Amino acid sequence: MKKLINNPQNVVLESLRGFGRAHPSLVRINEDPLFVCRAEGAVRGKVGLVSGGGSGHEPLHAGYVGLGMLDAAVPGAVFTSPTPEPILEATKAADGGAGVLHIVKNYTGDVLNFETAAELAEAEDITVRAVVVNDDVAVEDSLYTAGRRGVGGTVLVEKIAGAAAERGDDLDAVAGVAERVIGNVRSMGVALTACTVPHAGKPSFDLAEDEIEIGIGIHGEPGRHRIPMAGADEITERLLTPVLEDLEVDRGENVLLFVNGMGGTPLSELYLVFNHAWDVLDQRGLNVTRSLVGSYITSLEMQGASITVLRLDDELAGLWDAPVDTPALRRGI
Amino acid sequence: MKKLINNPQNVVLESLRGFGRAHPSLVRINEDPLFVCRAEGAVRGKVGLVSGGGSGHEPLHAGYVGLGMLDAAVPGAVFTSPTPEPILEATKAADGGAGVLHIVKNYTGDVLNFETAAELAEAEDITVRAVVVNDDVAVEDSLYTAGRRGVGGTVLVEKIAGAAAERGDDLDAVAGVAERVIGNVRSMGVALTACTVPHAGKPSFDLAEDEIEIGIGIHGEPGRHRIPMAGADEITERLLTPVLEDLEVDRGENVLLFVNGMGGTPLSELYLVFNHAWDVLDQRGLNVTRSLVGSYITSLEMQGASITVLRLDDELAGLWDAPVDTPALRRGI
Repeated sequence: MKKLINNPQNVVLESLRGFGRAHPSLVRINEDPLFVCRAEGAVRGKVGLVSGGGSGHEPLHAGYVGLGMLDAAVPGAVFTSPTPEPILEATKAADGGAGVLHIVKNYTGDVLNFETAAELAEAEDITVRAVVVNDDVAVEDSLYTAGRRGVGGTVLVEKIAGAAAERGDDLDAVAGVAERVIGNVRSMGVALTACTVPHAGKPSFDLAEDEIEIGIGIHGEPGRHRIPMAGADEITERLLTPVLEDLEVDRGENVLLFVNGMGGTPLSELYLVFNHAWDVLDQRGLNVTRSLVGSYITSLEMQGASITVLRLDDELAGLWDAPVDTPALRRGI
Repeated sequence: MKKLINNPQNVVLESLRGFGRAHPSLVRINEDPLFVCRAEGAVRGKVGLVSGGGSGHEPLHAGYVGLGMLDAAVPGAVFTSPTPEPILEATKAADGGAGVLHIVKNYTGDVLNFETAAELAEAEDITVRAVVVNDDVAVEDSLYTAGRRGVGGTVLVEKIAGAAAERGDDLDAVAGVAERVIGNVRSMGVALTACTVPHAGKPSFDLAEDEIEIGIGIHGEPGRHRIPMAGADEITERLLTPVLEDLEVDRGENVLLFVNGMGGTPLSELYLVFNHAWDVLDQRGLNVTRSLVGSYITSLEMQGASITVLRLDDELAGLWDAPVDTPALRRGI
C-alpha cells in the first residue's frame, strides 16, 4: 500500500489538523468530539447546515464549511459513519437560533446516526430537519444502503441550500430548497481502478487490467456491471443516458452539468468527459447553463469519474451563483 | 492503460474544448494555433503574462488564465513543449500595448521555443521579457533540462507576477517581481507511482511495489534516489530539508507553504503532509503565514506530492492576497 500516511489509525485526525492550519480564517477543528465548524462559529439568526459521513471523500464535507455552504461537517473514520455524539456537538455548534438542517447521504449508518443526533438535539431545544440525498441512479439497494446512494448531488445540495440559508430563508424554506435539488438531481459513476482503505491495506475490490465498473459507489460498492475498458465517449454515454432517463428531462430545459473525479483521475480527463457530455446534452436539446468540473466527492485514490445532472430553474440557478467562500469551493467573494 | 480518453492523439484538444465550455466567462480557446486566452482578450495598458509548456500538468497553465494571473497559456502535446508559432500568437493575443512577460519553466524545449517566439514577437513590435523558473532543488541537470527544473514554484510566480501586472506595474517591474519570487522559492517532489503518457501507452518508468522516488520531476524524470516506502512524516522531511537548506531561511522569517499533489494523490494525504511540514517549519522558527494545498501542477495520474516553500516579504504576501479569478484559483473576487 502506497499512501502518504503515517499510522493508518490517525489519518483522519492528522489530515484535519493540516486542513485547519491551511484554512485558519475559514474553519476551526474541534478534536473531541471530532467535527469542523466555521472559524467564526454559528451565525445568529441563520439556519445552520450540518453534513457529514465517512472520511475518504475529501474535499466532501469539511471542504465545504464556510460562507454560503455548511456551518459544520462531521467526518467519521474512513468510509465509516460518524457516531451521534460528534453530530450532536456539531449541530449545537452550527445552531444560530433558527434551527439546523442535516444534509445526509443515503447510507444506512449515516441516516441512523444523524437521526439519533437529531433526537438528542431536539431534547436540547434545537429544531432539526433532515434531508437525505439519494441521487445515484446506478442501483436500488447496495452494500451500505437501502434505496439509492447519495453521491455527487450532495455537493450541489450543500451549495444551493447553503445559499438559501445565507439569504435568510427559514428552516422549512431551506429544507424545501434542499428537497427541490434532491428531486432534480441524478448521478452515476465509473471506476477504472479500486481504492485502498488505509486500515485495510489492500484494494476494496479487484478490477482486471482491461475492465471497468459502471455504476460504482463512492466506497467501491458494486455498480451495475463490468465492461471491458472503453473510450471516454462511450463511457460518458453509459453514465449519462441512465441519468437523463431517470431525470426525465425535456428539450429546452436548463441544466447544471457536474463531472466529478474519484480522486485519482487527472483534471484533463474530467474536462474531456465534460466535453462529450456537453455534446450529448446539446443533442438532446438541453442547455448547459452552469457547470462544475473537478474532484469534489472522491473515493480516496480511485481512478474514475461520475456525472451529475441537475435540472435548473431560475431560483436554483441564482442560488448556485450566490457567493461561496469555503476551502474547496470559492466564488463571488 | 486505463484513461478516460478516446484517441490518444486528441486528448489535449478534446480536453481543452471541455475546459472552454466549462469556463466560458473566463477563457477562450483558440484552436489553430492552439492557445488559451482570457475571454475578454488583452487588457489595454496592462502588461500581458503568457506561460505554457507540455500538457499533462493540469490545471497548469490554462487553469491560471484570468484576472490576476495569466493572459494566455500555450499547451503543447503531453509532456512536449509547444512550438514557437502558438507561443507567438498567444503573445500577440496577450499584448495590451505594455509589453508581454513570458513565464517559462526551465526545460530545454520550452526555453528555446519561447526564445524564438519572443524574437518573432519583437519583430512585430511587441516588447517581450522572459523569466525562467527553476525551483526544483532535487537535481542540477536532468533528462529535459540544463540546470534545475521548473516545478511548483511556477504557480506562485504566475499568481504573484499576475497581481503585479494587474495593479499596473510596468514590464520591468512585473519581471522584477517574478524574478524575486524565483529567487525565493524552492521545491522538491516524490513519486509513489509512475504515470503513463497516453500515446506511449505504458508507464514512463518502473517503481517497485515497495519503493518510491525522492526528487522526481514532473515528467517522471529521475530524482535523487529511490528509497523503500516510508511514512508520510519521513517523506515530508526528506523533501523539506533540502528545500530549506537551499533556500537558506532564517528563524523568524515568513513563508508560504505549498503542498502540491501530482494528480493521483487524495487531498486528505496532501493535508496530512502539510500538517507535518508546518510542524517542521515551526520547529525551525519559521512562520507559515500563507499556504496552498491541492493538485495545482501535476503529472497526469502520478501518485505523489511536492513541497514548495516561498520566502515572503510584505509586498509578495500582499500580491499573493490580491484578487484572482481563474478556473483553477479563485479568491477575493
